[in-house]
Amino acid sequence: MTAGKRLAVVGAGAVGGSVADLAAAYGHTVVAFADSSSAVVDSGGVDTDAAIEQKSADGSVGDADPEEALHADYDVLVEATPTTLDDAEPGFSHVRAALERDRHVVLANKGPVAERYSDLRGLERDSDGAVRFEATVGGAIPILSTVGDLNPTHVTAARGVLNGTANFILSRMAAEGIDYEHVLAEAQDLGVAEADPAFDVEGTDAALKCVILANVLAGDDQEFTLEDADVAGITDVPGSALELAAEDGRTIRLVGEATREGIRVGPRLVPQNAALAVTGTRNIVQLETAHAGQLNLSGRGAGGEETASAVLGDVGRLG
Amino acid sequence: MTAGKRLAVVGAGAVGGSVADLAAAYGHTVVAFADSSSAVVDSGGVDTDAAIEQKSADGSVGDADPEEALHADYDVLVEATPTTLDDAEPGFSHVRAALERDRHVVLANKGPVAERYSDLRGLERDSDGAVRFEATVGGAIPILSTVGDLNPTHVTAARGVLNGTANFILSRMAAEGIDYEHVLAEAQDLGVAEADPAFDVEGTDAALKCVILANVLAGDDQEFTLEDADVAGITDVPGSALELAAEDGRTIRLVGEATREGIRVGPRLVPQNAALAVTGTRNIVQLETAHAGQLNLSGRGAGGEETASAVLGDVGRLG
Repeated sequence: MTAGKRLAVVGAGAVGGSVADLAAAYGHTVVAFADSSSAVVDSGGVDTDAAIEQKSADGSVGDADPEEALHADYDVLVEATPTTLDDAEPGFSHVRAALERDRHVVLANKGPVAERYSDLRGLERDSDGAVRFEATVGGAIPILSTVGDLNPTHVTAARGVLNGTANFILSRMAAEGIDYEHVLAEAQDLGVAEADPAFDVEGTDAALKCVILANVLAGDDQEFTLEDADVAGITDVPGSALELAAEDGRTIRLVGEATREGIRVGPRLVPQNAALAVTGTRNIVQLETAHAGQLNLSGRGAGGEETASAVLGDVGRLG
Repeated sequence: MTAGKRLAVVGAGAVGGSVADLAAAYGHTVVAFADSSSAVVDSGGVDTDAAIEQKSADGSVGDADPEEALHADYDVLVEATPTTLDDAEPGFSHVRAALERDRHVVLANKGPVAERYSDLRGLERDSDGAVRFEATVGGAIPILSTVGDLNPTHVTAARGVLNGTANFILSRMAAEGIDYEHVLAEAQDLGVAEADPAFDVEGTDAALKCVILANVLAGDDQEFTLEDADVAGITDVPGSALELAAEDGRTIRLVGEATREGIRVGPRLVPQNAALAVTGTRNIVQLETAHAGQLNLSGRGAGGEETASAVLGDVGRLG
């Protein structure tokens, strides 16, 4: 067991809120908690219950300025603001601020890892702080820590189902024989799909996760960004295609693949009883290894508490 | 990446030999390599290819005494001698010798972890060395490191198929509709089953792995040994039972369960399309967690190279 850490949690959505809520159960103390417009800082330990309550009451986590959280006396910055593309701001600047102060960083935000990996590793090289980002790929599933333990040079490829919303829709289309639009509406009613589902159903979210995997596999040899990914979503998958697949004992899944050569995401035919044919919102990743054969890791790929457990696992792995 | 370590590899069977063979690929140096009757020690790095060649030629890995390997100048002792029960010797004494010298220990030998867990942790508490044993449960599958990252207190139960030989036999019986004795003979011809298969088919091996899981989950609260496990094997499973199961869309697997309350291993009915219904020699473990839902980890549960990759993963995790 590593000693308890002082955490600054930036981002107060489902993930940031759950990290703040669970930190004590993992032996850590939240000394700063911020959303985009407010913050609460307490070197003795933030009353996270009160902050989360205030957030739901008046939309602010406290009376301090968000900037103050970045300057608090923390050991680890937890970056849990929403994923943004291109310059990956404001997340990237939060990470820079922490590393320039020689603090550790644990990311749940995919932007800096998928879009600015070389910049991120460059800042890490110049810092006494380390960067970890298990939560950015596969939610609760320990994918990146497994790749790290195997040593990325011994992993030849990663392939998987990495978007629960798209998988829920395909699973329901196959099970009920109904069309995309109807299942999407159902998924939106259930809160499984966003009002604007493009990020999930067009494959962007799965692609970002594969870009992160490809960056980890390639190490310093090559940098990938979303622009390098060959991406197709599920919006054009007709129910009839799923029926045809079923007649052949197969189904369709949105499968992402990452290697040192690149990233591909798109609908693929997979046997109905294959490991890749996970149902509902579950995720799975298959790692092809040089010495350990194929490893399959599956579980909940999203959810505030599940993703927070990955963040806190990373915090525990820090020296 | 952690710095390369100097390894003393004790045990020159499939696992020890593969650790010696792969160590360099993971950035480590083998400075001592021993089997039960011989050893080779070289602080500059053992010529492992030559030692493995000599082992197959005349049965010895070198001209030194095995004791000399235990006194070599190593950072990590890799204990890969055959699993023994009760006092877990000679493995336990090898581990004690290393910890008393404040060296780290990585075990592939299940005996000391399953039969003498409290003694093992006691020696570790009094040492500057740490003990790791990922390879003792599920071969290449990163089960214990995942439990460690989740924090054992947040894992409520572990359940899985943990013996490839028994699973191969049940898979073949179900697929071919042939009886236990015939499939066992086939498995022995293929080298999947030992000439004396009792350790695998009577559930002892799976039980030892579950005992190790239960010890990790219980921490210092309680110690389990094989005597505490409720164990049934597959020798009495008739082909007709698998036929009946198949008519109901189910199959039979040798399932082990570990909780803080105890250990149970026996044949269980599972749906044919369930994650637990892995086929052939594959293993799977399902972890029930407090905050991350259910995690499924599957892969190759045995094999020299696969198990060696788990050993070397542990070496990499050492500070």
